[in-house]
Amino acid sequence: MRIVEKLEDAAAWCGRYRASGLSVGFVPTLGALHRGHASLLERARAECDRAVASIFVNPTQFGPGEDFTAYPRPREKDLALCRAAGVDLVYLARAEEIYPPGFQTWVTVEEVSKPLCGVSRPIHFRGVATVVTQLFAVVRPHRAYFGAKDYQQTLVVRRLVADLHLDTEVRVEPTVREADGLAMSSRNAYLDAEARSAAPRIRAALLAARTRVLEGETRTAAVLDRLREVLRPDALLELEYAEVRDATTLQEFPDGVVRSTPGGVVIAVAARAKGTRLIDNVVIPPDGPASP
Amino acid sequence: MRIVEKLEDAAAWCGRYRASGLSVGFVPTLGALHRGHASLLERARAECDRAVASIFVNPTQFGPGEDFTAYPRPREKDLALCRAAGVDLVYLARAEEIYPPGFQTWVTVEEVSKPLCGVSRPIHFRGVATVVTQLFAVVRPHRAYFGAKDYQQTLVVRRLVADLHLDTEVRVEPTVREADGLAMSSRNAYLDAEARSAAPRIRAALLAARTRVLEGETRTAAVLDRLREVLRPDALLELEYAEVRDATTLQEFPDGVVRSTPGGVVIAVAARAKGTRLIDNVVIPPDGPASP
Repeated sequence: MRIVEKLEDAAAWCGRYRASGLSVGFVPTLGALHRGHASLLERARAECDRAVASIFVNPTQFGPGEDFTAYPRPREKDLALCRAAGVDLVYLARAEEIYPPGFQTWVTVEEVSKPLCGVSRPIHFRGVATVVTQLFAVVRPHRAYFGAKDYQQTLVVRRLVADLHLDTEVRVEPTVREADGLAMSSRNAYLDAEARSAAPRIRAALLAARTRVLEGETRTAAVLDRLREVLRPDALLELEYAEVRDATTLQEFPDGVVRSTPGGVVIAVAARAKGTRLIDNVVIPPDGPASP
Repeated sequence: MRIVEKLEDAAAWCGRYRASGLSVGFVPTLGALHRGHASLLERARAECDRAVASIFVNPTQFGPGEDFTAYPRPREKDLALCRAAGVDLVYLARAEEIYPPGFQTWVTVEEVSKPLCGVSRPIHFRGVATVVTQLFAVVRPHRAYFGAKDYQQTLVVRRLVADLHLDTEVRVEPTVREADGLAMSSRNAYLDAEARSAAPRIRAALLAARTRVLEGETRTAAVLDRLREVLRPDALLELEYAEVRDATTLQEFPDGVVRSTPGGVVIAVAARAKGTRLIDNVVIPPDGPASP
């Protein structure tokens, strides 16, 4: 496994793969890798000739007061996970190269960045869209892999790839979960025992809400009532948002009535477990139940 | 000369050039080509293995009330000019492909887009930055050629290429002029005889202002007084702006005193000749007189 820190080295290696006719699979990460990342990396390894990971705690996707500084950076553990997943190249990006002196160019994906997480994190998806565009320009992947847990992020990335005509196929892989249903997240490391025991209620609440929709409930208010009933927001689990939305546009359903849409329906939650912000979602495809 | 209208054909041809080890020179244009474009195309032809031109009247860089609809589209004449310049591939881009349904992704270059033309054309450079990013993603040029007349545009493009890590060298070529000094522009076609006779005063005023700077004048107000004296704004020639700025950042000089800066000094003008908006500029390098 090759490890590079310089942007030009990352570009040169990926360029060499490409010039040799090898397909490149790419997993951009913030590091603090877990089994969710491992599944993306293994997928890239299986589907492409070369698997490339980037590790970069991207400052521009963190707002003021968020956990940029505290974000875990377990370098050796991350590299070991990459090695075990069969990664060929790890790009440890440096902020001073990603954002050169005088940097002032932003990629913004407008509508899908605004609702849900965009409300409390107004600059988050601008940072994500910009760094993904930058990293794609360096790596020029044939395929890039993202986890379904960050549902809104996957829409932002799909949209910018389509709109800017980037030559990359975006693959979204199922969320990997703990045995009790909690979605894998680097931020789970922040949870103490009490918060950890409350956190799986997010998944349980989403499944209960989905059941309501599959049973024929079309009123979003009733679906969200059921969700809150199972979530039981309290001091351990504070709800930031719970929404039932068009899964393609993230727009609300007019009159609060769920209608069949080409992309299906997404139910998405952000909640704080004793201060740690956790997100999860379920997507209900237009033609029936989603896979769990 | 090959002519393609589909985005995927343009990408495929350019990809084939690149895969064969051929360098690609690219000149993105709005069409209505003139000798200024011809010089860019000939430069691309001379410096690269393949010369690619795009012709696309990009709607997103025109504001409401601007001349998007009226902009000349002399297709056959444009193709003849490309052919004469030795172009290998012309991409006649279609708005419905460049901006697919649901399009919502913008590239913005912040600071350098704001002053000068950005004041009266607040969305112009967002449209330019976005379409350049899109066209670069399709063509993936080794080098791209822009004219010095659109000085602010060249800064926007240089900045986005640096900030997004695009693998393209930006080349800026000298403004081509009529015998009386008027900068070549597609919009010169709008000028009637009276406006045409007034228009060269823009260049004359810029040269007079530059002379003042080279003679040692450091007060921007005095330089601009000289400029206006030669320009003689009147009913035929209405001044939109005249500015003396840092040539790299486009920022004003503190206290209105020109200081030596790494990128030199730019004097830039936008004026309307009987309603037709014309721009021009002179750059004074930090180490002395510019080439004319």
